[in-house]
Amino acid sequence: MSKSGVTSPIGFRAAGVACGIKKNGQKDLALIVSDTPAAAAGVFTTNAVKGHSLKWSMEKIKSGKARAVVINSGCANACVGPAGDADAAHMASYAASLIGCEPCEVMLGSTGVIGYRLDMDKIKAGIDNAYSSLSEDGGSLAAQAIMTTDTFSKETSKTISIGGKTVTIGGMAKGSGMIHPNMATMISVITTDADITAEMLDKALRSACSKSFNRISVDGDTSVCDKVIILAGGMAENPPIISEGPDYDIFLSTLTEVSQTLAKMLARDGEGATKLIEIRANNCATSKDAHLILNAVAKSPLVKTAIFGNDANWGRIFTAAGYSGANFDPDKTDIYIGDLLVCKNGVAVPFDEEEALKILKEKEVIITLDFKDGKVFDRIWTCDLSYDYVKINGSYRS
Amino acid sequence: MSKSGVTSPIGFRAAGVACGIKKNGQKDLALIVSDTPAAAAGVFTTNAVKGHSLKWSMEKIKSGKARAVVINSGCANACVGPAGDADAAHMASYAASLIGCEPCEVMLGSTGVIGYRLDMDKIKAGIDNAYSSLSEDGGSLAAQAIMTTDTFSKETSKTISIGGKTVTIGGMAKGSGMIHPNMATMISVITTDADITAEMLDKALRSACSKSFNRISVDGDTSVCDKVIILAGGMAENPPIISEGPDYDIFLSTLTEVSQTLAKMLARDGEGATKLIEIRANNCATSKDAHLILNAVAKSPLVKTAIFGNDANWGRIFTAAGYSGANFDPDKTDIYIGDLLVCKNGVAVPFDEEEALKILKEKEVIITLDFKDGKVFDRIWTCDLSYDYVKINGSYRS
Repeated sequence: MSKSGVTSPIGFRAAGVACGIKKNGQKDLALIVSDTPAAAAGVFTTNAVKGHSLKWSMEKIKSGKARAVVINSGCANACVGPAGDADAAHMASYAASLIGCEPCEVMLGSTGVIGYRLDMDKIKAGIDNAYSSLSEDGGSLAAQAIMTTDTFSKETSKTISIGGKTVTIGGMAKGSGMIHPNMATMISVITTDADITAEMLDKALRSACSKSFNRISVDGDTSVCDKVIILAGGMAENPPIISEGPDYDIFLSTLTEVSQTLAKMLARDGEGATKLIEIRANNCATSKDAHLILNAVAKSPLVKTAIFGNDANWGRIFTAAGYSGANFDPDKTDIYIGDLLVCKNGVAVPFDEEEALKILKEKEVIITLDFKDGKVFDRIWTCDLSYDYVKINGSYRS
Repeated sequence: MSKSGVTSPIGFRAAGVACGIKKNGQKDLALIVSDTPAAAAGVFTTNAVKGHSLKWSMEKIKSGKARAVVINSGCANACVGPAGDADAAHMASYAASLIGCEPCEVMLGSTGVIGYRLDMDKIKAGIDNAYSSLSEDGGSLAAQAIMTTDTFSKETSKTISIGGKTVTIGGMAKGSGMIHPNMATMISVITTDADITAEMLDKALRSACSKSFNRISVDGDTSVCDKVIILAGGMAENPPIISEGPDYDIFLSTLTEVSQTLAKMLARDGEGATKLIEIRANNCATSKDAHLILNAVAKSPLVKTAIFGNDANWGRIFTAAGYSGANFDPDKTDIYIGDLLVCKNGVAVPFDEEEALKILKEKEVIITLDFKDGKVFDRIWTCDLSYDYVKINGSYRS
């Protein structure tokens, strides 16, 4: 074991334990604690239906500070009425009493099945157990404890220099189904030892999310419990980042990189996925058009099954762009599979099927649409749709 | 063989033949001819990308009259450039020369793979063959000839009395994947011997579609070749329907019924579908909200796989409603699976899992969301998402 993910930065300890919420006995409770009162920011689901633990965090993070994050998997603590709000408050105050902070400084996350109450005895025993096993090497255990249908745990970190000081940003994420802009059934916690104000942290997180977590799609469903939370403890002792400028730019680009690495891991681990698909919209007239097109193509089950089947069926890609609601000129549109031009100015181009097959058999496939209509570039990451998606989701709740 | 589908009304003959467009040698060309110049109307795909045969029909039907419809399956005649428009014109004039009408009176449809030219020698030979086998019993052969991934051919008819005269409305449809509002990869031809003006026919068709073909969803993809065309030959000799009134109302309700029967057949035959799902939105505040919610729930792969797996996972239904963009109060929402209440005022209700399993195992499942927020009712038909959807679509083009 070594420092990784959320415990990569100085001043963070974490734990991941099994408390019995998951029926299979696997880890289901993660605790991350900052040694110092940290600046905090969050981005939350846009779903009209919101989980109780999520609502707690949305409300409390407005203060811009936090000491800890508690996340359970196996039960979403959603749609159970006022009792769910009480359970969330209880969970936060129980953790706060151990850590020695205010309940409002404890952010919460719950992910799993909707419509069932949390077993608070198990949760409390889990928090006890996690608290006593907090460690600077605990990042990877925490990352394991937040998994639901994930097939691998997801964490990353990156170190930079700001004002002569070494600054680290680390993060973990979970989620594989229901991932779609904005914020699907994913939870990510990012930590940093950077010294940065809550205001600038919030600004950086929103910008990073718009290029990472809000640019992935697995099945187009967005969940009621999705969130990204960032805590900045300040132990790196860099000159405080209090406004835009070169230091902020470095921090933002690193945060974006960390977020993109995690986001791509989520797309790659899409339920039943066999490959990562990157869809690019080049030379769009407007950001809105690019967004509509990328979403439609990334969500299309016909596109996703074709790529699963290694079928260079660009007609489905073009069709999805066509019904996206975006304004573009079909007669000016080019489509590429990898580097292979398959459609020029809206018309089929004869291409080497063997070459296409080779590109499609790779673990990462890039699809590019060029609209020759402006200067906007955007992209989205998604995955293919396989038999296993159906298998996983046809029997999840039971 | 007997009169059925499009040849149910007096004055229509049809044929379905194999001309070699489909590699497997199955029927792939349908011809429907009205003995009289018929009033005609059409509803077409909203996709920005439009097939060449479709564009021909969209343009020509503006005259409000037609004599015939030629449809080929196996090749969509889409995205092949100006040659595709020329092929469409050629197809229409060849058929017109045999029938003895103007090319602009021949409506066209092409469905199948995108990006390949039609083989005009095969098409012309097919039209020759179809023309010489035109018959009042040919409705079912025509219905077979327009199938692509359909597992059964779809036709229906209904007879009513208008002004003391027997009036028949008959129709056929194809499509199973890519079906979504508005007008997915479906083609439907409806015929009637009613005497009705083109204007009233257009009005009736639009109204009927909004409650039938535009209320089905299989995978959320909408195709570039979708259309519904109706021809009214007038041979029933009813008092002409020239305005709204009781006769129009009878005609409209019957047309709606015929359209719904065909639409439900399409949803039931969704690629890989094992059951028909009807989703109802009750007591919505506005039509727009109902529409957004129904679309999101019907498109959700998580909802569709859960129902495939007989899993009463109402959390996914609620989640989809939540991200639909509709305005509604989650805390007032009730959800039913069949007649079983599973969520009341946004909170889980304990329910009999055995009872739920029994409901979900039926071939038709009704899901109801009650928003207790207004008076709007709407519904949509869709199907579950199974392993076979992936199988069919992972290897379609090749």
